[in-house]
Amino acid sequence: MTQTANPEAANSAEAPATPRKPARRHRAGKLPGRQDWSTWPHYNAAKAGFRGYWYPVTYSSHVGERPVRIRLLGEDIAIVRDKGTVYALANRCPHRGVPLTYGNKQFPGTLSCVYHGWTFDLKSGDLCAVITDGPDSRLCGKVTQPTYDVEERLGMVWIYVGDGEQPHPIDEQLPEELVENAAVVGSRIQPREGNWRFACENGYDEGHAKFLHRTALWRMFKAMPVWNITRIERRGRWIFRVQEEQHWSADFPGVGKWTSLAWYKKKPSGKVSNIGNVGSQREPNPVIAEQGFPGFVSVAMPGILRVVYPTFIHYEFYTPVDEDNHLYVGVMANFSKGVHTLPFYVKYLGAVRWLFHGQFSSQDKWMVEMTDAPPEKLYRPDASLLQWRALAEDVTEARIERLTELGLAPADES
Amino acid sequence: MTQTANPEAANSAEAPATPRKPARRHRAGKLPGRQDWSTWPHYNAAKAGFRGYWYPVTYSSHVGERPVRIRLLGEDIAIVRDKGTVYALANRCPHRGVPLTYGNKQFPGTLSCVYHGWTFDLKSGDLCAVITDGPDSRLCGKVTQPTYDVEERLGMVWIYVGDGEQPHPIDEQLPEELVENAAVVGSRIQPREGNWRFACENGYDEGHAKFLHRTALWRMFKAMPVWNITRIERRGRWIFRVQEEQHWSADFPGVGKWTSLAWYKKKPSGKVSNIGNVGSQREPNPVIAEQGFPGFVSVAMPGILRVVYPTFIHYEFYTPVDEDNHLYVGVMANFSKGVHTLPFYVKYLGAVRWLFHGQFSSQDKWMVEMTDAPPEKLYRPDASLLQWRALAEDVTEARIERLTELGLAPADES
Amino acid sequence: MTQTANPEAANSAEAPATPRKPARRHRAGKLPGRQDWSTWPHYNAAKAGFRGYWYPVTYSSHVGERPVRIRLLGEDIAIVRDKGTVYALANRCPHRGVPLTYGNKQFPGTLSCVYHGWTFDLKSGDLCAVITDGPDSRLCGKVTQPTYDVEERLGMVWIYVGDGEQPHPIDEQLPEELVENAAVVGSRIQPREGNWRFACENGYDEGHAKFLHRTALWRMFKAMPVWNITRIERRGRWIFRVQEEQHWSADFPGVGKWTSLAWYKKKPSGKVSNIGNVGSQREPNPVIAEQGFPGFVSVAMPGILRVVYPTFIHYEFYTPVDEDNHLYVGVMANFSKGVHTLPFYVKYLGAVRWLFHGQFSSQDKWMVEMTDAPPEKLYRPDASLLQWRALAEDVTEARIERLTELGLAPADES
Repeated sequence: MTQTANPEAANSAEAPATPRKPARRHRAGKLPGRQDWSTWPHYNAAKAGFRGYWYPVTYSSHVGERPVRIRLLGEDIAIVRDKGTVYALANRCPHRGVPLTYGNKQFPGTLSCVYHGWTFDLKSGDLCAVITDGPDSRLCGKVTQPTYDVEERLGMVWIYVGDGEQPHPIDEQLPEELVENAAVVGSRIQPREGNWRFACENGYDEGHAKFLHRTALWRMFKAMPVWNITRIERRGRWIFRVQEEQHWSADFPGVGKWTSLAWYKKKPSGKVSNIGNVGSQREPNPVIAEQGFPGFVSVAMPGILRVVYPTFIHYEFYTPVDEDNHLYVGVMANFSKGVHTLPFYVKYLGAVRWLFHGQFSSQDKWMVEMTDAPPEKLYRPDASLLQWRALAEDVTEARIERLTELGLAPADES
Repeated sequence: MTQTANPEAANSAEAPATPRKPARRHRAGKLPGRQDWSTWPHYNAAKAGFRGYWYPVTYSSHVGERPVRIRLLGEDIAIVRDKGTVYALANRCPHRGVPLTYGNKQFPGTLSCVYHGWTFDLKSGDLCAVITDGPDSRLCGKVTQPTYDVEERLGMVWIYVGDGEQPHPIDEQLPEELVENAAVVGSRIQPREGNWRFACENGYDEGHAKFLHRTALWRMFKAMPVWNITRIERRGRWIFRVQEEQHWSADFPGVGKWTSLAWYKKKPSGKVSNIGNVGSQREPNPVIAEQGFPGFVSVAMPGILRVVYPTFIHYEFYTPVDEDNHLYVGVMANFSKGVHTLPFYVKYLGAVRWLFHGQFSSQDKWMVEMTDAPPEKLYRPDASLLQWRALAEDVTEARIERLTELGLAPADES
Repeated sequence: MTQTANPEAANSAEAPATPRKPARRHRAGKLPGRQDWSTWPHYNAAKAGFRGYWYPVTYSSHVGERPVRIRLLGEDIAIVRDKGTVYALANRCPHRGVPLTYGNKQFPGTLSCVYHGWTFDLKSGDLCAVITDGPDSRLCGKVTQPTYDVEERLGMVWIYVGDGEQPHPIDEQLPEELVENAAVVGSRIQPREGNWRFACENGYDEGHAKFLHRTALWRMFKAMPVWNITRIERRGRWIFRVQEEQHWSADFPGVGKWTSLAWYKKKPSGKVSNIGNVGSQREPNPVIAEQGFPGFVSVAMPGILRVVYPTFIHYEFYTPVDEDNHLYVGVMANFSKGVHTLPFYVKYLGAVRWLFHGQFSSQDKWMVEMTDAPPEKLYRPDASLLQWRALAEDVTEARIERLTELGLAPADES
């Protein structure tokens, strides 16, 4: 009809109405299920992320002598390298609000604002010189720019966002096996839209992988179950998804049969698969085996996902940028040594990077951008989400007690 | 001055001030005329459209086996065709808020969400399977997705937006002559900015055509009056603009003469023109003649415009998308039969489509985007607008009474 | 790391933490210094500009027979030329809110709205004809469109925005030397983002030039002091920056030495430089000399900056467009006569326009866009800002008294 006049239209104008369907009540009203997240007050408040943690923000190789502007938990931060060490300051010059990242180093160990030459010590944040006010400026030592603790790990820069407390060592927050063992890693950092919680919940979500990802090349030749019976098990700061049943096809009454099996796909083993533990078709790498992970997928605060394969482990760190944006930080780690690392390089660069960190992960990206909850009507497999939120709630409760003892009111509830 | 230094500027710096005009009071204050539309509470509330009507949303030929996303009265709707019939559901999956239009049909007569395979019956909206929860999901039958009634007419898909009541038959809402007679139609659907009410008021507005459209090619060779005396006459659900006087030129005291007559334009007939009724220079098509339309232009709820020409009728349907957008649906209908329809095809595709549905109508589009009312200072020819708003008010009053009897609180007032 | 797997990452995973820095308290909380501008209530209220002044809005050469749309102090204005004189009206047609700038002149001395032909007298703003309502329209003389006083100076169109009072003569607002003497001027009008107050404060700011502009080619071969001692002196409606000390290098304790002197730069004279007054290395132009300006830079309401050089004067007018945008109007004036004006043309077109009105000024543009205050932590050189704000406060206080006597409530406080 866009391009030509339309004779059928004439007929359809005479056509009888399609058989009437029973009237249905369509109201704009209340949506089904949970209307808000008040069940988890701390989780609900952490729109822009949980304070009191280390977050990866960029590659170490991207931070040099010129300041770099980053956004983390909604805060505007300047990071710059000096004599090899990376420093981080609040980016807003207190004089007139101009970003310090437009400035540069006029003196070693300092950063000067481009506008009037206010100069801050990188270590302490103290205003140590005001160039256009001369050597005797009365402001020196009277103004201090907020600073952030910085570490470098896995080839990335990590920043601690807290409420004034002494940060815990970053190695207490990284997955243990990465701290205790040498690893070769391949990683990808990608800015993504959507709240960090949707990204984390998508990562740990027990339900979607088998349906959403059925079309990913990464899964092309691997059968996936239609549905599972899964138990959530907590070990220390991690909670694991332990699979107890896997069903490879299903017949939905009055609707039809559904399966992801196909002649060209690898047949599933008889055993329930919790790769790295039982059920794997391949001999796991010794480092991975000795961890004795009870389940395939695990998660810890403040949003660290671990997916265990026989010969490597895939991690996802969800860094909150602000309420509507996050960084997807995907890390693939292999624990082979010396010449045995070569196959990993080949596999990572030849396939993993493009199929897994690429197309497969971009399906998640798409869903995280689209997710809009609450309201939400959760279902059985969302037990994984409920456990994750409960974990976040417990851990945050404990942190707030510590802060209160220190006389530090946490900001994340305000 | 942008490109060169400027000597006159020197002189103008010495130049005497231009003769002083009397001081004038410019205040940012209150604008003249009507400040709001509280006179018509229902009309005022219907920013996003009137509930309880059928609206054309797209071409039938554009709706196939893959879902299509549309927005209607501010609601997000998925429409999809199954075994020839078009179905419509609320687009937001109740699980996590992902649009169902990203999903597809995993089983006949159903639509599955792309994320976790929540599967809804197209007829009833019932959740009939949750693929990733297995055959025994406790949610089945417990969740129902809101659905919409759908019809197809004039080669387009029509959707009913109500408050839960049984819809009236669509044929009661279409212009009678289109239901009772075979017609060949040419139509154009165009998304436009601006509130649907400005579009409808522009269509029925008695005043603007003669001035705004004087430059349209469609009017190039046809004289138009400078001003008219017009009476508004109601017949059933329609109100007609009946022209009683036409003035082809005017002398504005102290300002000057104005006319749209020109040597190259067709001279107007002596009679007052209410084409299809009296005053036409041509013999009207029998179907049109027997309608005995009292006036050239008429309008009915929820925003259906009818413009009667001797050999065809032009309709405009203004479909509210949301408060700031609408669909312009222009339909040109001819009631000739068989071989006599050929000249219409030629005329529509050769001229009408480009000059009338095209340039002429785009002048209206431009004004609808620019209109900003209330406040508004109406004038005599705006009697057409006042009558239209009064009609909307009457009809809505009656509908709300019916709803209240049915125990259904209307949403459009909330 | 983006393109390849990364061996060092493995090592860094084992690497010892960088030496712990002392814990620092980072709170999102209150910023240092002044939290708001309540100290200067009128200045604080003048977000969109001060009412009661003439503002340059465009080049005279840009205003012809077709209306031009401009925005000034947040008001939407139509300006058009008729028989050589420029007129200005509020741009919103009172009928349906369509901008009059889409219309044109249907009769001499009038402007007609494109939609329904409402026709306004350019001088008085009176509705003098309504084309589509015929000669006897009852509205004529009953509706008056707000108008603005207009003048032309320096090759530009100036508009007065007030509260209904009789405007003061524009020549009382222009810099005296421009009214009393012939001048050749080169000017640039540039729309810029950022509040007009940041633009004006940047212009008069005593501190930034020596640091921000150190990299401008305009300053390439001219040494600039590191810091000054400056006194602000008021003469009539102007306040001058009088320099008492200039320091050409400085040693910041514990930080380092800093200077803008360099072998390729012109050596500064021994005397303190208040060019046009004392300290200039060159003989000033007689017109400039006889003004006896006490200082290099001066400012007057409503935001007129004057920078005095030996052979020319540079002016900046900051025209408020709305709360977030302003016009930068840069004017370079030379008071030579006849053939002696030639070197000025050469210098302006060959250098000043590109280096000064261009690159140098664009550094200011950048800062004005970036400035975000209050909160602000001011320092000694900001005495210039404090004096400017105090001036604005005094002058506005006086104006409000005059308005109150006239029984005109000022709008800028509402």
